Amino acid sequence: MDKFEEKTIKTEAIYDGKVIQVQVDDVQLPNGKTSKRELVKHSGAVAVIPITKDNKIIFVKQYRKPLEKTLVEIPAGKLEKGEAPETTAVRELEEETGYTTGELSLVANFYSSPGFADELLYIYITDQLEKLDTPPAGDEDEFVELVELTLDEAKQYVEEGLIQDAKTNYAVLYLHALGRM
Amino acid sequence: MDKFEEKTIKTEAIYDGKVIQVQVDDVQLPNGKTSKRELVKHSGAVAVIPITKDNKIIFVKQYRKPLEKTLVEIPAGKLEKGEAPETTAVRELEEETGYTTGELSLVANFYSSPGFADELLYIYITDQLEKLDTPPAGDEDEFVELVELTLDEAKQYVEEGLIQDAKTNYAVLYLHALGRM
Repeated sequence: MDKFEEKTIKTEAIYDGKVIQVQVDDVQLPNGKTSKRELVKHSGAVAVIPITKDNKIIFVKQYRKPLEKTLVEIPAGKLEKGEAPETTAVRELEEETGYTTGELSLVANFYSSPGFADELLYIYITDQLEKLDTPPAGDEDEFVELVELTLDEAKQYVEEGLIQDAKTNYAVLYLHALGRM
Repeated sequence: MDKFEEKTIKTEAIYDGKVIQVQVDDVQLPNGKTSKRELVKHSGAVAVIPITKDNKIIFVKQYRKPLEKTLVEIPAGKLEKGEAPETTAVRELEEETGYTTGELSLVANFYSSPGFADELLYIYITDQLEKLDTPPAGDEDEFVELVELTLDEAKQYVEEGLIQDAKTNYAVLYLHALGRM
């Protein structure tokens, strides 16, 4: 039982989209007063750090409409309802990079932005990559380009703001802390 | 000029809240086809890693309505429009911990969830903390409790899922990588 729990008095559904649902809750605060909470519901996301045999990290370059710019990110995608995160990880790896893997290790999982969204993100790593002869097609509205970088190059991308999202910054810091590259 | 740029054909405003704005854009894809993008607009956020004189990290325990649970996080808050991130950092530090500082170093900045939101997060660190005699009052609908942890204790919190958000997991990994605690 959370002593700071905020009890829901009323939920107003605002938007039901393909990626997000938005709602506003009237809540009762611990001091008895009421307030409003704006909430974004999201099914969660899964990312993979793919390490090649020659010790490079495979990133994808992708246009991000919310920012109106292109970022360099580790491969990632939306968790489908009821799907195991490892399944999402392999699918997104295959679709975005053309590689598959039979071996994934969980690096971390955390909420992207717990103040307003419930998106939970899983990050996996693999250095067991196998090239697919015929990679599956990805989402038809998704255009990505592959970039293979050494860890030092990736750190340079962070410096230059080309790598600038939570999961990818975390991945670069993780590999740096690991000291294996 | 981004070659994967998605040109906006139409913007539909969905919701204009206190924390987020939601809109759906019809976009033209690089292949000429059209698609929809669901976008959450957010003014950005600032977090601080406060290190005490006896080498502990000050965290705040806070109920997060989107998750319906309490998380342990580094102090953070919303960037007000036009505000310098350092100003937000000091204000949130003062309101949430009762300490202030004249010295902040930028650790990282990244987008929390670039697939659907434009929230940019800044993380600062300071080990120059001064206790305030009369800390300013925080948001009246925000209830937090302080927790001071060593780095080893914080890592344990990560293991147990008590620390489970992007900025705080990043902060713990950063301090681990720094090797100074």
